[in-house]
Amino acid sequence: MSDPVMDTMNFLNEITLRYPEAISFAPGRPYDGLFDVEQIFAHIRRYLDHLALQGESPAGIREALFQYGPTAGRIRELIAGSLRADEDIQVPAESIVVTVGCQEAMFLTLRVLFSRREDVLLVSSPSYVGITGAARLLGIEPVAVVEHEDGLSCADVEVAVAVELAAGRRPRAIYVTPDHSNPSGVTMPLRTRHELLDLAARHDLLILEDSPYRLVSQGTRLPTLKSLDRARRVVHLGSYSKTVFPGARVGFAVADQTVVDTAGRSGLLADELAKVKSMVTVNTSPLGQAVIAGALLESAGRISDLNDETAKYYGDTLRTTLRCLDRVLPPVRRARLGVGWNRPSGGFFLTLKVPFRADNAALARSAQDFGVIWTPMSYFYPQGGGERGIRLSTSYLTHDEIESGIARLAEFIASASEDS
Amino acid sequence: MSDPVMDTMNFLNEITLRYPEAISFAPGRPYDGLFDVEQIFAHIRRYLDHLALQGESPAGIREALFQYGPTAGRIRELIAGSLRADEDIQVPAESIVVTVGCQEAMFLTLRVLFSRREDVLLVSSPSYVGITGAARLLGIEPVAVVEHEDGLSCADVEVAVAVELAAGRRPRAIYVTPDHSNPSGVTMPLRTRHELLDLAARHDLLILEDSPYRLVSQGTRLPTLKSLDRARRVVHLGSYSKTVFPGARVGFAVADQTVVDTAGRSGLLADELAKVKSMVTVNTSPLGQAVIAGALLESAGRISDLNDETAKYYGDTLRTTLRCLDRVLPPVRRARLGVGWNRPSGGFFLTLKVPFRADNAALARSAQDFGVIWTPMSYFYPQGGGERGIRLSTSYLTHDEIESGIARLAEFIASASEDS
Repeated sequence: MSDPVMDTMNFLNEITLRYPEAISFAPGRPYDGLFDVEQIFAHIRRYLDHLALQGESPAGIREALFQYGPTAGRIRELIAGSLRADEDIQVPAESIVVTVGCQEAMFLTLRVLFSRREDVLLVSSPSYVGITGAARLLGIEPVAVVEHEDGLSCADVEVAVAVELAAGRRPRAIYVTPDHSNPSGVTMPLRTRHELLDLAARHDLLILEDSPYRLVSQGTRLPTLKSLDRARRVVHLGSYSKTVFPGARVGFAVADQTVVDTAGRSGLLADELAKVKSMVTVNTSPLGQAVIAGALLESAGRISDLNDETAKYYGDTLRTTLRCLDRVLPPVRRARLGVGWNRPSGGFFLTLKVPFRADNAALARSAQDFGVIWTPMSYFYPQGGGERGIRLSTSYLTHDEIESGIARLAEFIASASEDS
Repeated sequence: MSDPVMDTMNFLNEITLRYPEAISFAPGRPYDGLFDVEQIFAHIRRYLDHLALQGESPAGIREALFQYGPTAGRIRELIAGSLRADEDIQVPAESIVVTVGCQEAMFLTLRVLFSRREDVLLVSSPSYVGITGAARLLGIEPVAVVEHEDGLSCADVEVAVAVELAAGRRPRAIYVTPDHSNPSGVTMPLRTRHELLDLAARHDLLILEDSPYRLVSQGTRLPTLKSLDRARRVVHLGSYSKTVFPGARVGFAVADQTVVDTAGRSGLLADELAKVKSMVTVNTSPLGQAVIAGALLESAGRISDLNDETAKYYGDTLRTTLRCLDRVLPPVRRARLGVGWNRPSGGFFLTLKVPFRADNAALARSAQDFGVIWTPMSYFYPQGGGERGIRLSTSYLTHDEIESGIARLAEFIASASEDS
């Protein structure tokens, strides 16, 4: 298949490989300096000890680690407990499906929810490429609802719903990343969360809530949409890639909605996701689940507690980045160049507005002539936009790298602005 | 979604839960009595030592285990080496995509290969439900080519191809399990392997070869279709669920075909699979890959060597089952009842023919009144058939269970035959 998003992502990968000495603000991956191989063994042993304490036999413990296991996952009770402890999300374990990362949760959810040709997925835009990529793979064309500097406006969502309905299509769900969004870094205010839930109820719309950065961010957390959800309008998409580690490939969906299948029987959406999962990956690795379970047990379900140091690291790198930007691009120079950026309260990303087209050609010049790599924001707009935007990821760099990188970026921006 | 295969599989699961005391010849899962939790840690450490010996830095080793890693997988060189050592399959590492079990390899392969509405998947029938389920999930209707007692006939495949072409459809690929097939237990003779490759070349057909049981079976192995493939007609689908353990959820596809994408660029089929994978599961767990890599390193790529004891176990249980059947259903009684079975040379399964409808109602009576569970063969026929067939899985039971179970089965068969 040829997909514009995949093609541009490939370009970014090629640039990264071609200029290994460049400082890269591109990858949105977690910092791994705090990881230790022994943690993995400790987590697995902790989970196996837990099974033994629960009265599981040696044969049962062996089976839990080595065999296939249930399609919907082995550690749903622990995840449900953690969602209660950490997020005030009260759902039965049966409404959870453990998936191969959050990506599979997205894929399964879209596959089950979008059955009719006229079903439309709204996405807060700019948007994570994983959701738009999965949608396109399934033949679902995402419809962008453009986010403002202060986030998504429910009035815009209302308009988008009306436009789609008028065109004979059915808005089925809206995808949002309420906390420290990838790519923009924007957080949805509490008022908008309530408004969006009301809107969803009025229009029989589901909300797909993806929030991988909130538990690795410092400061007060706003409630998740799912914790505010009284009408089962929210499918919460979970990831342990940032809170534990990506290599486990464990995520989950909370899908407590009642659905009616084509045979007219009603059941949980989670059960429908599991049925599809059985034909995609059979089940999520019990070994990966064991590691995650061990981490959940270690923190008594408060996975946020495990991430105090990590959250501090990300807070530091984000603040350092902002400080460096302020220093190399002080207000007067900023205004003269026509450059600006936002100040996210957490997460991995911030966005810059620049007075030139921040496209692949600009990225190539930036890497070659200035030794600094970033991600064009246009990658994240499913229906066009963001041509003058740059995403910076601050999650993976040291203070020295950030300092040099931002200095180089300022030089590149000055040069590109003069040319434009 | 409602799928007849999933619904019947659910019935089997319910029966198994409802009669926990019944002896079950249903699950096709590997025997786990030879597994030991410490093996997992040893395998991971062996892989990490291997990386260190290759000159990888501590940071690089940490990254290899904890981070996302390449979409197509981290251990492709080791898998390519193992395919050379164990199977005489000579392919570059670049043609391999590491997947979340063989199921994801099937799913990705079908997704990429079947792009036109008129594309048809032929399946040797009875067939593994994973391939027909994945096909239906993708809107591909499988076309059955009925297998005989001695396996698939290429003349039948020729007819099926002609029928499809005449109807304006395009046979794109045929799915086969050449060795000790699930569910029938049949092995494809060498002559048929060569004929099928010739046929595939003549009709521009790809062969999807799935062979999870061959390296855990005793005796001489016939060459894989892929090792005989001189024209890149075979996509080899690999599984480590039986040779290492299912809980790792690691499989792979060997896809060395050249394909042209919608933008007109040519590349490896493997690259196209990886692109789709990035939107389904992002990548296969590096932790799971590390365990498999450790097992491959332990055996210098000859994963079959690791399975001597396991293969002996499966050989014993299969022979015990056949011996028990011979004893409780001797030739005269067998003939009177109209019962027969095949004698597979390896694998997990054998099939019985019975003189009554071996449907869900019969299964329920067998479980309730006789305390023995089996799988109706009709589950495995995508377009009908197998109504008087029973699949027995022999992989997971002890000798005592087999002895009691076969005695109960004979009683059930006698009772059901008299009623019919």
